[in-house]
Amino acid sequence: MSLLDASQSKPMEGGASFSLGNRMLRVAWGVTWLLLARWTPPPLWGWRRMVLRAFGARVGTGARVYGSTRVWLPANLTLGERALIGPGVHLYNQGAIAIGAYSVISQGAHICASSHDIRDPDFQLVLRPVTIGERCWVAAEAFVGPGVVMGDRSVLAARGALFGKAAPDGVYTGNPAVFLKERGLRRP
Amino acid sequence: MSLLDASQSKPMEGGASFSLGNRMLRVAWGVTWLLLARWTPPPLWGWRRMVLRAFGARVGTGARVYGSTRVWLPANLTLGERALIGPGVHLYNQGAIAIGAYSVISQGAHICASSHDIRDPDFQLVLRPVTIGERCWVAAEAFVGPGVVMGDRSVLAARGALFGKAAPDGVYTGNPAVFLKERGLRRP
Amino acid sequence: MSLLDASQSKPMEGGASFSLGNRMLRVAWGVTWLLLARWTPPPLWGWRRMVLRAFGARVGTGARVYGSTRVWLPANLTLGERALIGPGVHLYNQGAIAIGAYSVISQGAHICASSHDIRDPDFQLVLRPVTIGERCWVAAEAFVGPGVVMGDRSVLAARGALFGKAAPDGVYTGNPAVFLKERGLRRP
Repeated sequence: MSLLDASQSKPMEGGASFSLGNRMLRVAWGVTWLLLARWTPPPLWGWRRMVLRAFGARVGTGARVYGSTRVWLPANLTLGERALIGPGVHLYNQGAIAIGAYSVISQGAHICASSHDIRDPDFQLVLRPVTIGERCWVAAEAFVGPGVVMGDRSVLAARGALFGKAAPDGVYTGNPAVFLKERGLRRP
Repeated sequence: MSLLDASQSKPMEGGASFSLGNRMLRVAWGVTWLLLARWTPPPLWGWRRMVLRAFGARVGTGARVYGSTRVWLPANLTLGERALIGPGVHLYNQGAIAIGAYSVISQGAHICASSHDIRDPDFQLVLRPVTIGERCWVAAEAFVGPGVVMGDRSVLAARGALFGKAAPDGVYTGNPAVFLKERGLRRP
Repeated sequence: MSLLDASQSKPMEGGASFSLGNRMLRVAWGVTWLLLARWTPPPLWGWRRMVLRAFGARVGTGARVYGSTRVWLPANLTLGERALIGPGVHLYNQGAIAIGAYSVISQGAHICASSHDIRDPDFQLVLRPVTIGERCWVAAEAFVGPGVVMGDRSVLAARGALFGKAAPDGVYTGNPAVFLKERGLRRP
């Protein structure tokens, strides 16, 4: 985990929060995605899965990631079977992000797995993993904050900004997002 | 309407929500806008109107659309006379979007005319048209959700996220957006 | 200030809100940033400071601005010592924006220093400067609206949308953003 160690830096003084190895790896990742994937049309799902896996992402069978999706570090990403990550989604995974099988992340959503210690004069970076269950929906341009856990089948409405826990089958909306109703998913 | 028919797909299984014809048309549209309009400077309003009309948009006299505006499908777009669509606006018109005369959509706003049936195990796409009246203002980075109707001269404040109806002359703010006050427009 | 004079235009009739000189200057600025800075990797902080200063920005020692940051007009920008402007930040400074020493503006945040007079039939542009104090944090994808003043060490949480005043050491969250708690910064 030394590549990801963020402790003891001085971000307020201009110090880097990540090791040189981590930064070199991310340069390689950024260039690779730009050249091999960023411009590819939607149907090339298999190709982009391969590129993500080559950089250490755990990607389930049939998971679909658009070329315009931004991933901070593939090694911190886990996608379940047939998960769908839409166009323009930002997976800001300085900390780990896991998204369960059949979950859908819609266009422009942002999932952020890090924060800063606002009481610390050094403003230290804090990694807080995000876990999204199975068959969830994070709708268009929603925001899932650091440390959030979304239960299976929960829904975050468009532009919702979630900072707490989402119960299974719950529908959440607003900023900050609050519980709106039960999803009421019918049996297949 | 067969190009736009979204019923009976299986999005959760990876099935396309739109017909092959629709998808081919959108590829042609995306390439055309990229090559002919995306990079053009603001004053070329007339040229971009022509490109939009060539793909089926109904665009009123003097309507202004920036090159950085994204339109999902021009055939689903109606713009009134002198409507202004700002830089970076996202018109996600899987369903129809109509924007009335003299209305202003500011930078980075997102208008979204589709959703999913969250009670359906197949997570079916649902098209819900958006109608914005005349002399409205959707301010910077606001979000107008599926099925919304904004009455004439209504205002959605910056970053507001509107999911219900906006009364004529009403000013709405917040996420979810709520009525704040009457606009109090002076007589010209 | 004649370059920035926005009065007496007719934006609803398609009239420009800014003088020809202002618009020419912004074309030069946009092309310059695109060619010289937009694609540069993070460590070239000094180079980007130089480009910003050449166009009139007042940039303190060690201030860091990413290549993907968008600045409307450098002449309207003041950055304090070691301020950090993150990737994808939008400084929409039609009016003046000042950001104090050691403040951090995180990825995708938007600071907007102009609005429109919604009671005016001509929908006149209104310039309203934004002032952010020292050691503040505007977190990921937050929005700071026209005329806002943020006191020293105040915090706007991720996706927060602030339209009023933020007291020193206050933490604000939500849309519209409200006071959540005191920051409780420890002594260094």
